[in-house]
Amino acid sequence: MAIAPRELLRAMFDAAVDAALPSLRIPAHLPLPPKGCTIVVGAGKASASMAKALEDNWPGPLTGLVVTRDRHSVPCKRIEIVEASHPVPDSRGMKAAERIRAMVEGLGPDDLVIALVSGGGSALLTLPAPGLTLEDKQAVNVVLLRSGASIGEMNIVRKHLSAIKGGRLAAAAYPAEVATLVISDVPGDDPGLIASGPTVADPSTFVEAAAVLTKYGITEPKSVIEHLRRAQEETPKAGDARLATARTTTIATPQLSLEAAAEVARNAGFTPLILGNALEGEAREVGRVMAGIARQTVEWAQPVRPPVVLLSGGETTVTIKGTGRGGRNVEFLLALAVELGGIPNVFALAGDTDGVDGAEEIAGAIATPDTLARAAALGIDAKASLANNDGHGFFEALGDQVITGPTRTNVNDFRAILITASNQGVAGGPQ
Amino acid sequence: MAIAPRELLRAMFDAAVDAALPSLRIPAHLPLPPKGCTIVVGAGKASASMAKALEDNWPGPLTGLVVTRDRHSVPCKRIEIVEASHPVPDSRGMKAAERIRAMVEGLGPDDLVIALVSGGGSALLTLPAPGLTLEDKQAVNVVLLRSGASIGEMNIVRKHLSAIKGGRLAAAAYPAEVATLVISDVPGDDPGLIASGPTVADPSTFVEAAAVLTKYGITEPKSVIEHLRRAQEETPKAGDARLATARTTTIATPQLSLEAAAEVARNAGFTPLILGNALEGEAREVGRVMAGIARQTVEWAQPVRPPVVLLSGGETTVTIKGTGRGGRNVEFLLALAVELGGIPNVFALAGDTDGVDGAEEIAGAIATPDTLARAAALGIDAKASLANNDGHGFFEALGDQVITGPTRTNVNDFRAILITASNQGVAGGPQ
Repeated sequence: MAIAPRELLRAMFDAAVDAALPSLRIPAHLPLPPKGCTIVVGAGKASASMAKALEDNWPGPLTGLVVTRDRHSVPCKRIEIVEASHPVPDSRGMKAAERIRAMVEGLGPDDLVIALVSGGGSALLTLPAPGLTLEDKQAVNVVLLRSGASIGEMNIVRKHLSAIKGGRLAAAAYPAEVATLVISDVPGDDPGLIASGPTVADPSTFVEAAAVLTKYGITEPKSVIEHLRRAQEETPKAGDARLATARTTTIATPQLSLEAAAEVARNAGFTPLILGNALEGEAREVGRVMAGIARQTVEWAQPVRPPVVLLSGGETTVTIKGTGRGGRNVEFLLALAVELGGIPNVFALAGDTDGVDGAEEIAGAIATPDTLARAAALGIDAKASLANNDGHGFFEALGDQVITGPTRTNVNDFRAILITASNQGVAGGPQ
Repeated sequence: MAIAPRELLRAMFDAAVDAALPSLRIPAHLPLPPKGCTIVVGAGKASASMAKALEDNWPGPLTGLVVTRDRHSVPCKRIEIVEASHPVPDSRGMKAAERIRAMVEGLGPDDLVIALVSGGGSALLTLPAPGLTLEDKQAVNVVLLRSGASIGEMNIVRKHLSAIKGGRLAAAAYPAEVATLVISDVPGDDPGLIASGPTVADPSTFVEAAAVLTKYGITEPKSVIEHLRRAQEETPKAGDARLATARTTTIATPQLSLEAAAEVARNAGFTPLILGNALEGEAREVGRVMAGIARQTVEWAQPVRPPVVLLSGGETTVTIKGTGRGGRNVEFLLALAVELGGIPNVFALAGDTDGVDGAEEIAGAIATPDTLARAAALGIDAKASLANNDGHGFFEALGDQVITGPTRTNVNDFRAILITASNQGVAGGPQ
């Protein structure tokens, strides 16, 4: 084996992140320049880095405005970047949304709107429908979040309280051409679910939105109830003429990032096995299941014979019970290491593709067969660290963090479990 | 596809159970009859059915005694069956262990002892070392169970407080030949871990046993502490002459049962993928992870292209929060169904190979793409059933339980997720 496990794991993670970087993905998906003018708009955690990549590669003149999350700015020369609050919308986001809508109105058929859409855009791009206020939307959002409504149900309501979501931005831009570039961090990559789909047709209706509130017994604010009851100006549906000149290209997804990592694994002589691009569950329990699959691979060469890499994406959850410094990915990784108990030939990396796993600027970490032993030598008990949700503390003590800095893109979590063949033991040993 | 998904799932489960049935496994693994006499002993949940299979197939004379769990008896003609308490040992088990040890003492080199060992045997085969009482052992067991000690650590202590565990039964039978037949329900199938290995060499020591108690701050009962300190007569180690005539054959394991199910799948045109024979974790979280893998299979033909069956074994856990009627397997299955949300082409069966998932004589259940819809039509909300740990109630209402009756063997849980190719839609539809 030409490459050591740690380096191979890191190379796979870097390939996964690179496959989601606007600077590498945008140039390959540029729309054709229009005869008229080019207006760039957008919202999401990646919108500033998408704007930078676009203006760096755009062959003609352009102007524009995108809204991103606080501290997610990237300096741009021609596109204005506005920061706003996430996940609770604020007036900065609302003002930016007003300006964005105004920018695309009154364009002609020779003009082009490029919409840069990524996760987080729904809160950042907030524009209440006529007759509603930001406070109305905030109020119903708070009640919805507590109600047990699914994210799909919440989006139906949000789209029907907005002057910009659910395809309304594209309708406002008509008859200009609208080219939407999307970075997906949601299972299934439905563009209608990313930033509440400001440029794509919306299958849901006012009646369905009202039914969601009824289902969860929500009767306030009265202005919201009344707005849904009046049901004026439905969101654009599939086939709406105003969307005829709009098209969407998904330029980065969890799946594409896993495929990029799989290619790195294949080139290194490992069989890549993509188990899922949207695995969910309590992080430590996902770690236990993955440990079971890794153990089966080592002991029985099933589901496939090593050398193999088990790849997965998606967003796990952590139920915090301790007081440690943690995140989804290091929690997963620590549980995996504990469950594996130091069996030989199994190495793993887990990290958030946005570069931030939890509160700190640590993307994730790497576990090796001697992780538990090295921790014990430092007087650190892995089980106790796990019980305290102290994944970052644990892997930091071992010097095994993965640090990239904020990548300003996001295709969710990345997990790779590398299992060497037993005769790869020497090269496969820890550094 | 010649066979409908429900029938194929049930055929796989039946094959998994059959592969663990003493009546089918014992005849293929009979030791050669001795010149002298044959004594059958044993302990475990499957020991009575193992005894029945043995006496039905043994070509010569034999006598014997095995101890099994309450309500796990099978009528035998030549081998006495004793029932005892599990998981807390009682005096019935202790008296049986005394008699078993006495039966194998004083045998000669021409005699044969057949030991029938299966899960649960550790509690059933209880014989305190000289100077200790049953109460001493019960007391230390209670403290150990609360201490957070691992099962491996508990076994080290138990073996050093016993007159029959940790190879001592085989040593007592020396110079007779000892043939042990094992049904494994533990990860890794180590015969030293099943029924605390009464006939196999024990690598652990009195010093290690005392260290376990020290580690967890256990200082009572004094008689136990003193016994470990005196360290008289260590358990037989590998290479001990008294074990030279003892050999162990593992006749049934979770892996063998999964392989049997895989063969059924293969014959039906499905690619079997064994993900793990010892997966652990909170049942509903394991269900979520498996749903993610199934969804990846449907949407991306990864990790392999359908038609495929994802197989796994091992014992999940359930943290009970509701008041419903549940078990590990139906909890897993209900969570899987909820997470899949009715996507086409995915069918699943989860069941306990002992025929009892939870408290009732229901082995498990089957889920189909229309499970949620059929439940909703009956006014049953799957998420609410899951929150109430009511898996048996849920699948019973749908008529989708899997009922085998107690199988009197146990190789742990069995889970199969069958994913048909999309062009198999018609034959793949629910019944």
